[in-house]
Amino acid sequence: MENIIIIGIAGGTGSGKTTLIKQIKKEFHDEITILSHDFYYKENSHLPFEERAQLNYDHPNAFDTELMVEHIKELKAGRSIERPVYDFVIHNRRAETETVTPSKVIVVEGILIFENKELLNLFDIKVFIDTDPDVRLIRRILRDVRERGRSLDSVINQYLTTVKLMHEEFVEPSKKNADIIIPEGGYNHVALQMLNDRIKALLKLEE
Amino acid sequence: MENIIIIGIAGGTGSGKTTLIKQIKKEFHDEITILSHDFYYKENSHLPFEERAQLNYDHPNAFDTELMVEHIKELKAGRSIERPVYDFVIHNRRAETETVTPSKVIVVEGILIFENKELLNLFDIKVFIDTDPDVRLIRRILRDVRERGRSLDSVINQYLTTVKLMHEEFVEPSKKNADIIIPEGGYNHVALQMLNDRIKALLKLEE
Repeated sequence: MENIIIIGIAGGTGSGKTTLIKQIKKEFHDEITILSHDFYYKENSHLPFEERAQLNYDHPNAFDTELMVEHIKELKAGRSIERPVYDFVIHNRRAETETVTPSKVIVVEGILIFENKELLNLFDIKVFIDTDPDVRLIRRILRDVRERGRSLDSVINQYLTTVKLMHEEFVEPSKKNADIIIPEGGYNHVALQMLNDRIKALLKLEE
Repeated sequence: MENIIIIGIAGGTGSGKTTLIKQIKKEFHDEITILSHDFYYKENSHLPFEERAQLNYDHPNAFDTELMVEHIKELKAGRSIERPVYDFVIHNRRAETETVTPSKVIVVEGILIFENKELLNLFDIKVFIDTDPDVRLIRRILRDVRERGRSLDSVINQYLTTVKLMHEEFVEPSKKNADIIIPEGGYNHVALQMLNDRIKALLKLEE
């Protein structure tokens, strides 16, 4: 398994990354491994909870991207990794890790994965999902309020003070590094088909 | 040949549409027919040359899109068409036509083809090439000055008085109608591969 295919899927918060990945998974099942940049949030045990809660989680420095790059290289070389597990409730990395075994296709996803040059060099296909900011905001509000039990005020406050600013500073400019840009990710049937076709063609090449 | 594949390729002036199409043609040769929106500039014999030269050729109304829609439907139904021939020197349609026979893949290209709803409904794949305005301007200047013998002043004047305005009013908003957006068309290898894979998959389905 020397030639594992690495696909990067980026796009702002609420752009539809998860929906697109679900659709790809339907086609390739166990041939695919998902690696989220979020797994690699830095370990912040040296800070008290209140300070950890206040950190800017949309800035490139919030991530241990170096470790992620290392892990992707390991998987590409056919070796298993112990990926970190991040706990969003305590805003910190957990002590335990999770074993990830290499598969034919590795999907790396995150808002900032096209911002880092080392990561960029690892991707065979770079897909950016481009969704209007208002639509993304609606999805984020619904997700955080309904699924994560947060207050509307806190979601909007975080959006205006960090999410929006980081998007404009880092996420939006990184779009230029993509091979293809997909408007409205998971519900874009033609784009999904093209991506699936390419993955199939690459898998056949590797057989 | 009931199920002919129609691919729309849009993008502003100088975005790289021609380069991308050349690359696709390399792969599919005679299976492909190119239909440019420019072929369908309106017949303007009722106006003197000077007035024809002053027309806004970047506005949707400059095109006989209705005829183009009709022709695409004819080709899709497996029938030949007589497409108009436009003469950029006299700014008018020529008397003669050119016979186009249906092929498996028809590529429709133009800056404004995603602006028209009837056209949009005909495309199986909609590709928009997104290239920075300054890069597009450079390509336009080089093409018009070197290949079409125009003066730099006249190219820039036309760019500022119509091309740029029409781009912002009609071309840029039509990007949203695309299935995929390709940064830097013909030189984007991964995107080209994806497009070729999809065409191949569709051709196999139709066999």
